[in-house]
Amino acid sequence: MSGIATKMAKGQKQIAISEFFEKNKHFLGFDTLQRSIITAVKEAVDNSLDACEEARILPDINIKITKVDMKRDILELQSQDNGPGIPQKSIEKVFGQLLFGSRFHAIRQSRGQQGIGITGVVMYGQLTTGKPTHVISKIASESTAAVVDIGIDTRKNKAIKSNQDRMIWEDDDGSIIEHGLRVITRMKGKYQRGRQSVFQYLRMTSIVNPHASITFTDPEGETFHWPRVSEKLPTKVDSIKPHPHGIELGQLQRMCKDSSDSRMTVFLRQNFSGVSMRAAKELCDAADLDVGAKPRLLKPDHVRALLESFQGERTNNGKAVKLLAPPTNCLSPIEEILIKKGLSKTIDSKFIATMTRVPNVSHGNPFQVEVGLIFGEGLGGDKPVEILRFANRVPLMYQQGGCLLTKAIESIDWRQYGLDQAGGRGVPKGQAAILIHLASTNVQFTSEAKEALSDNESVFEETRKAMLEMGRGLRKHLEKKKKMAKTREKFELINDILPAIAAKSAAILNRPVPALSGSITKIMSAVICEEETEWNRETKITDVKITLFNYTSRARSYSILVNWPEKAGAEITENERGGRKEAMGIWGWKIETLEPGEKALIEYSLTGLEKGDWTETEVFFRGSQDVIGATKLDEKMLTQIRADEAALNQIELPEEEDEEEDYLPSTVEGNPGQATLFGGEQ
Amino acid sequence: MSGIATKMAKGQKQIAISEFFEKNKHFLGFDTLQRSIITAVKEAVDNSLDACEEARILPDINIKITKVDMKRDILELQSQDNGPGIPQKSIEKVFGQLLFGSRFHAIRQSRGQQGIGITGVVMYGQLTTGKPTHVISKIASESTAAVVDIGIDTRKNKAIKSNQDRMIWEDDDGSIIEHGLRVITRMKGKYQRGRQSVFQYLRMTSIVNPHASITFTDPEGETFHWPRVSEKLPTKVDSIKPHPHGIELGQLQRMCKDSSDSRMTVFLRQNFSGVSMRAAKELCDAADLDVGAKPRLLKPDHVRALLESFQGERTNNGKAVKLLAPPTNCLSPIEEILIKKGLSKTIDSKFIATMTRVPNVSHGNPFQVEVGLIFGEGLGGDKPVEILRFANRVPLMYQQGGCLLTKAIESIDWRQYGLDQAGGRGVPKGQAAILIHLASTNVQFTSEAKEALSDNESVFEETRKAMLEMGRGLRKHLEKKKKMAKTREKFELINDILPAIAAKSAAILNRPVPALSGSITKIMSAVICEEETEWNRETKITDVKITLFNYTSRARSYSILVNWPEKAGAEITENERGGRKEAMGIWGWKIETLEPGEKALIEYSLTGLEKGDWTETEVFFRGSQDVIGATKLDEKMLTQIRADEAALNQIELPEEEDEEEDYLPSTVEGNPGQATLFGGEQ
Repeated sequence: MSGIATKMAKGQKQIAISEFFEKNKHFLGFDTLQRSIITAVKEAVDNSLDACEEARILPDINIKITKVDMKRDILELQSQDNGPGIPQKSIEKVFGQLLFGSRFHAIRQSRGQQGIGITGVVMYGQLTTGKPTHVISKIASESTAAVVDIGIDTRKNKAIKSNQDRMIWEDDDGSIIEHGLRVITRMKGKYQRGRQSVFQYLRMTSIVNPHASITFTDPEGETFHWPRVSEKLPTKVDSIKPHPHGIELGQLQRMCKDSSDSRMTVFLRQNFSGVSMRAAKELCDAADLDVGAKPRLLKPDHVRALLESFQGERTNNGKAVKLLAPPTNCLSPIEEILIKKGLSKTIDSKFIATMTRVPNVSHGNPFQVEVGLIFGEGLGGDKPVEILRFANRVPLMYQQGGCLLTKAIESIDWRQYGLDQAGGRGVPKGQAAILIHLASTNVQFTSEAKEALSDNESVFEETRKAMLEMGRGLRKHLEKKKKMAKTREKFELINDILPAIAAKSAAILNRPVPALSGSITKIMSAVICEEETEWNRETKITDVKITLFNYTSRARSYSILVNWPEKAGAEITENERGGRKEAMGIWGWKIETLEPGEKALIEYSLTGLEKGDWTETEVFFRGSQDVIGATKLDEKMLTQIRADEAALNQIELPEEEDEEEDYLPSTVEGNPGQATLFGGEQ
Repeated sequence: MSGIATKMAKGQKQIAISEFFEKNKHFLGFDTLQRSIITAVKEAVDNSLDACEEARILPDINIKITKVDMKRDILELQSQDNGPGIPQKSIEKVFGQLLFGSRFHAIRQSRGQQGIGITGVVMYGQLTTGKPTHVISKIASESTAAVVDIGIDTRKNKAIKSNQDRMIWEDDDGSIIEHGLRVITRMKGKYQRGRQSVFQYLRMTSIVNPHASITFTDPEGETFHWPRVSEKLPTKVDSIKPHPHGIELGQLQRMCKDSSDSRMTVFLRQNFSGVSMRAAKELCDAADLDVGAKPRLLKPDHVRALLESFQGERTNNGKAVKLLAPPTNCLSPIEEILIKKGLSKTIDSKFIATMTRVPNVSHGNPFQVEVGLIFGEGLGGDKPVEILRFANRVPLMYQQGGCLLTKAIESIDWRQYGLDQAGGRGVPKGQAAILIHLASTNVQFTSEAKEALSDNESVFEETRKAMLEMGRGLRKHLEKKKKMAKTREKFELINDILPAIAAKSAAILNRPVPALSGSITKIMSAVICEEETEWNRETKITDVKITLFNYTSRARSYSILVNWPEKAGAEITENERGGRKEAMGIWGWKIETLEPGEKALIEYSLTGLEKGDWTETEVFFRGSQDVIGATKLDEKMLTQIRADEAALNQIELPEEEDEEEDYLPSTVEGNPGQATLFGGEQ
């Protein structure tokens, strides 16, 4: 017994990270043969999309899977992109060394974060086939491409290079490739079709990355192509500095210790986002620190005091120090129209509702939730609804049950929206699909395979709110439809039947037909707006027609505003009435006088859209008398949209020291499904 | 554009494993404050149980949680065990270095596998409170205990030691502690009660680790104690060598390259389990390799050929080389009676069914599935059944939806067992609980937090089979009950009413009452067995009474056998009839002659059990005439149990080169819920 502790200790040794992941390859998504090939494609495509986005290149991605050895389930995956390529000396690290990457320390939205993905593919290929991965990389500044075979020494987490060379890299058509990357890996895998398949993964990816052109050749030799449908790259995302609200004590201690800044104010201003000069001074005051103190020399108690002032536990003149919210130009949401597009591709739609929340912050990391709901033609059915999950524009295809996003769906009572749901909890049933996208600078997955989100109160709450708000919008929409239908009924009754009765009566009585417009106006006593948004098959554009009827006894004056998908690239054309742009995606017309019994017509068309992209226009009005079929404009909403636009265009606003901005912004009231952005100092 | 690739490459750097897990602390189970404290307790307890088991010490574990700072959710966790302790110079590595451990490379069942757990706790504590973890360790061979504070330099994955000292370590009562470990960590966390709580975790742990004594003091100062209910340590598990069926090509290449063996046969015999001398020669033949070849010098093609002969793709004289199954003494299942105990503690039981499958093998790793099902008193109810998941005797409390074990449950049609289930899929509803335990040398979790099992076809299939088999047993049991009830009805009719009618008729007719025993025998024409198993409140033992009635017209002769929980430590006493032990857990009596109309009584008691442990005895018979209420003995079952017993006692069987053993053993027919072990060459 006495020597057991020593004996046990002797058996202990250090494990290399690559050994760790080789044994635990299921953490990386290599659990079953069916999933392994999907994981490999996913890692390759994520890398290509990230690299192209960072280099501001419209991506052309080519994926090809061939069966090398049917009996032993050996597949070959070839992936090629037109990205910036990787310099020769970096190739071995990117492909042959785990935990090597550029995005780990950066706070911004990206697909890859960990420096594991593609190296995991190389490792899995080597483990299951004994073969290295073949890489061709061409960067624009060099005349030839680098070629090399990469394997991994898993005991040392180092690449094993072989067959290194340089070559003129020509495309199949003989043209020289300027820049790009080709990766060829053999691995054990089983290609399958269906809901969890490479095909489905690429299809979902193309939906939320319309700027990418993706071509896929399956093992049968069949080729699928998802063309680029938008020439607009996703909004450029910038790295931001950590926000004081998201810092843990241990992290702050390390930041102080490693700092070479000469004064606290410089340290606070330069290492954190949301800290103005005034806030830096106030934080020091609250923490009883000299603004000129050297961060490197802070005692543990001082660091703790600083953290407490970050968190509002130590105050300045009795008030917590106000910090600005972190900038949100580190996020790139999918946005409404793409969500609608994505959803309408999954099932035949009867009705779609969407909601993009304003960005929020969890532990100092900005994040944003978007949701969409589509109802199929025939509701009911005993099957659970389809759930489409995305994180940072990457489809999540596994671990649905263990995912925070699913749990948020399960926590909503969907019965009020017409879906079956036992006890008002759990995944609802019926012919419908729910889409959720989380954009975040730090997506917390349950594992390295990045297939499910781990529990996080703020993200859960935001997701719930998004769905409830979408639900409210949906209900409002249904109520509006109902009201419109009722009004229309009344209108038809009055407008069609009254004259008929009058004519008949007049004929019977042998009297002249009376003038009825006064009576009609009196009975209706309402201003009615009708909206029609229709795809024009011939001109291939979307025609919008808005009719305003004045069925009141007084002349009326209005401003009529509409939304249109400007962010998605749509432009207003054939707009004879003119008017003017009021804000991003909002156009307005002035209707000076609309006499009793008169109607006004607004007609325009939208270019730059596809069929199904835009099927309904929201109409707003400014004016004293309510308009049935339109919403009274919320001026705050307009202001917000303008501010967001300024932020988007990176208009530098002067630092306003006195600005009292809420850290966690509340949702903008008004138009549900209206994408709004979170403005702030940057 | 031209410099973008170089610029992007410059941003890339190596990330330390500790930085990686600090940022991704949710991978380790530190996602919410509520979960973090449970994770910390879990890691500490798992380590203590593993260390005690390896050192063959009956564990005494003390867990105490106190609130240090309510406002900032700072808790202090103190865990102490009587394990072997850790030698001073190993402490810093065990607690301050990730991926350092002894169990990573060993193939055997253990709770910890990765060398991450407790270091993760130290890291999380440091990150959230800035404080190191305080460790006291005493090993038996030293007179004083080592004391040290451990922090982590996450950039280097190295411990930071401070306040190192040695001391005489006394218990609270002043007695010197011989050996053991105390760990004190402060961390951010929220203590809560309920289904996902420290209390529940410890309770579940105590159920499947009856050899452990666990004491827990909660933040309110309330103390809970789960006493040791068995003095028997879990079966000692040995490390085994990898089995050829589980080797990947890359791994085999590395093993060959690193080998210093002089000949292939030595290499194959010494580095793999299941390879006999004959098999080693045949493998070389099948792979066209010289038995004297040096493994280190094998060419890639030779290694591939060897792998193909492992997998039966290359044959020897047209036949795949027979390999023995891997030994299963690396596994330690919970076993039937503990499953029953565990389940009956969760809800008031109406009926319990259990099933322990024989060990199976996936990718060369032995594993074993055990399941249990308990029905509550009032079935129905709209709530999903409770699912109790365990892996290697560790309760799994999170990620239920994403767990393979849950998916296996969801794939079964539970309606045939009386549970509600929409469409025959999904988690069934009703007042019931389902327990599943996976014992494996390589449990594949979905992440480092070890809360859910990732997809694996073999484990899924085994789990399904276990549940279906349990279901069959359940159905059989219900049918037997029904048959018995019918017979009893007939019996009562004949035995009570016939004599009454006879007496009445005789009285009316003024005739003597006729002798009816012949008529009764004629009408029944059956041998009936009745079994009663009852807890005796006074003597605190379990009394069993078996009655055999011969209602046939001939004398009968039988062997009557019963099962009893010998493995769980029960002993047969007050057995006046004598008889003899036929196999592990099987006792038998000879009933030489049972005349027509006669009955035989077998009475005995069982000691070493608690109330509720054993409520039903299965009765078997050997003999020509069927016995209603007993099962005809399957002699193959008896043989199997005996073989298992031999294997358990590690009786070395001579190596039989010609033995044709199936690689994947089929399930033993017969007694459902009968734990059987997988014999084989060792």
